[in-house]
Amino acid sequence: MVTRKSIGIGLMGLGVIGGGMAKALIGKPDTLSREAGSKLVLKKVLEKDLAKHGSLGIERSIFTTQFEELVTNPEVDIVVELMGGEYPAFEYIREALTRSKHVVTANKEVMSKHWSELLTVARDHQVSLRYEASVGGGIPLIAPFQEDLVANDISAIYAILNGTTNYILTRMAREGLDFSVALKKAQELGYAEADPTKDIEGVDAAYKLAILTTIAFGTEVRSEDVYHEGISRLQACDFRYARELGYAIKLLAIAKRSGNSIEARVHPVFIPEDSLLAKVDGVYNAIHVEGDLVGKVIFYGEGAGPRATSSAVVSDIIKIAQNINRGTTDIPRLPFASGRTVKPMDEIETRYYMRMGVADKAGVLAQISKILGDYAISISSVIQKETDPSTQIAEIVIMTHRAKEKAVQQALKKAERLAVVKEITNFVRVEA
Amino acid sequence: MVTRKSIGIGLMGLGVIGGGMAKALIGKPDTLSREAGSKLVLKKVLEKDLAKHGSLGIERSIFTTQFEELVTNPEVDIVVELMGGEYPAFEYIREALTRSKHVVTANKEVMSKHWSELLTVARDHQVSLRYEASVGGGIPLIAPFQEDLVANDISAIYAILNGTTNYILTRMAREGLDFSVALKKAQELGYAEADPTKDIEGVDAAYKLAILTTIAFGTEVRSEDVYHEGISRLQACDFRYARELGYAIKLLAIAKRSGNSIEARVHPVFIPEDSLLAKVDGVYNAIHVEGDLVGKVIFYGEGAGPRATSSAVVSDIIKIAQNINRGTTDIPRLPFASGRTVKPMDEIETRYYMRMGVADKAGVLAQISKILGDYAISISSVIQKETDPSTQIAEIVIMTHRAKEKAVQQALKKAERLAVVKEITNFVRVEA
Repeated sequence: MVTRKSIGIGLMGLGVIGGGMAKALIGKPDTLSREAGSKLVLKKVLEKDLAKHGSLGIERSIFTTQFEELVTNPEVDIVVELMGGEYPAFEYIREALTRSKHVVTANKEVMSKHWSELLTVARDHQVSLRYEASVGGGIPLIAPFQEDLVANDISAIYAILNGTTNYILTRMAREGLDFSVALKKAQELGYAEADPTKDIEGVDAAYKLAILTTIAFGTEVRSEDVYHEGISRLQACDFRYARELGYAIKLLAIAKRSGNSIEARVHPVFIPEDSLLAKVDGVYNAIHVEGDLVGKVIFYGEGAGPRATSSAVVSDIIKIAQNINRGTTDIPRLPFASGRTVKPMDEIETRYYMRMGVADKAGVLAQISKILGDYAISISSVIQKETDPSTQIAEIVIMTHRAKEKAVQQALKKAERLAVVKEITNFVRVEA
Repeated sequence: MVTRKSIGIGLMGLGVIGGGMAKALIGKPDTLSREAGSKLVLKKVLEKDLAKHGSLGIERSIFTTQFEELVTNPEVDIVVELMGGEYPAFEYIREALTRSKHVVTANKEVMSKHWSELLTVARDHQVSLRYEASVGGGIPLIAPFQEDLVANDISAIYAILNGTTNYILTRMAREGLDFSVALKKAQELGYAEADPTKDIEGVDAAYKLAILTTIAFGTEVRSEDVYHEGISRLQACDFRYARELGYAIKLLAIAKRSGNSIEARVHPVFIPEDSLLAKVDGVYNAIHVEGDLVGKVIFYGEGAGPRATSSAVVSDIIKIAQNINRGTTDIPRLPFASGRTVKPMDEIETRYYMRMGVADKAGVLAQISKILGDYAISISSVIQKETDPSTQIAEIVIMTHRAKEKAVQQALKKAERLAVVKEITNFVRVEA
């Protein structure tokens, strides 16, 4: 066991996250080298904008615009990918692994789409591929799942995995804002991007859930297998009704396992207002896990941002460095329970909240409940508000008992065709 | 790298926790051997009550009442200590390490009193000593601190580490029960022991905080260095006043670091009612950590019980087994920042809640605030309730701004000597 004097890092991407990571690496060399057992030295930085070196105090000579130059550098032991996006990050990671470099990445899109291929390449070349920062920012998640909860059979995950949408929902709930207004405020404050699609449509959370589900259930779940639905249909009145009924509204990433059948879905959810997840406000993330031994465990923290992300990236680097110094490698594990498959969304079963505009006439509710009854959907409670005098439309809110998604979708289509129903204005799934 | 076919476990203690652990080990051999890379086989069980083998389905032949027989057995690779209590557990663990057995323990008392000696012995004999289950039951804590948050300088920990007291406080808050009634209910339900002293006086939480502080701040903090104060002085009215003022009352374990000065203390605390820790009810534990990179992270889950504990114990066993199969050992780390010392309680500074019975006379408040003022304690708010006609005593509640503990203690002593002050009925520290 010979401890290396220094271990070389090749950093790809020096944007907000990459810059934060470089700062963390340069800013506290003593803490890090004490933990790693070796000095961690930035040897190469791949970045188009060469002017960036100045502000970060990085030597200009180690900057390159050529991936080849970074990946072929013999002094680079660990390649850190913080470029984001699927391409070229995916090819760069694969190439780095092929050249027997260890890789650390925060890239949820690449990991959720190419997990199995990349881990196989890493295994073939006997190098590490670590991605703690890809889910939940600095919150320890991947390692706890793979190492600390390993004695458990995980049965369910309920998670707030996207800070942008949680921030928007928090403002909608607290201030009665409409979605578009809350989104605009989030953008002004830098909590939402100019093109917020991936966040608000649940795509980002689906990437992250695919990774967590894969690890928790030991079978590869790709992001394309995860149903996702965003928050843009929610209106201020949905939050009022939710509160009236004792619920909060959150964009949840949900994974459940029953035998070999897996559910993996991201969509807005009514959750009981006294649950801990309901109290998770602003840009914070929280992950509720259920295991047969541990019961329920919740992890909470900042799910994004340069500092939190670098907490996870640097800990991944340190783990690899410790292994290098021990003369060992933590070779990535491949899925072991390949018989498990993801259930089509149609087949899930849960409770539902439905909101619709109806004509202010006698017997309307009877007609709607008849249709629901035909599809074996039973009503648990109804709220009917005063009719809007200008439109002569009344709003009805229905909470159902457990029902099948397919039946609910069909029943709502049929109800929408009723003359007395003007519009199905929203429906949201309910998790107890 | 030769993978071992099986790895032998020697289990000491087959009480509630040890029995749960044996069940977990025997009950899911496939999951565990897949993770460990080898079969995990129970080779010896040290237990006085030989009749216990039947109910757990353990072969009678592996039972022994002699520690020597367990620790000298060459088939035992890992000794698991679940006897609890300081003696003889401490000597047994030390002896096992001396004989080059890896050790897994859930023993917070032994670890918090003998951490440094045991880790030194483990290091000298190049074996592992793991104790994930000693704090927070099944919640991953020790490993996240030592491995996942390792890039951070930790500045503070605020934690609910004792389920018994949290259960009692929850019932007092919800039902307006007095302490003794709530304690009795907890005992009836098995959430408190017949002799609940260690729990309700904060001793158990102090053991756990000593372990967390040692790891988080890299310097040995023994349980005797941790100030502790229990919950038995709290009364139903304290919860009413707390609510009126916007606070919840929790027994918190608090550790803070500023430069080389450490605070480590366990006592009841007023915390803002909208904080997440305030929502942690019943027997659950929660640990709020602050780090320079990660910001705030919270871990939540069951802090005790046979299943949750075995989740942590088994994961420790699996980590050791994986290392055996990789031909490596995770040699325990010793403290690195020995210059850090624990601040005496007198020197801490926080806000205070004070409740006192006073004579119903003009000028009482003036006399009390004069004394507080003399000690540089300024009042932030006052509640004065109607005088009890039978006793002619009025109750005054004072919330202070930040003040020094020593000054507050002295001021309260002086105030108690005032003719108009009948009794200082309680004082509780406030953390924002």
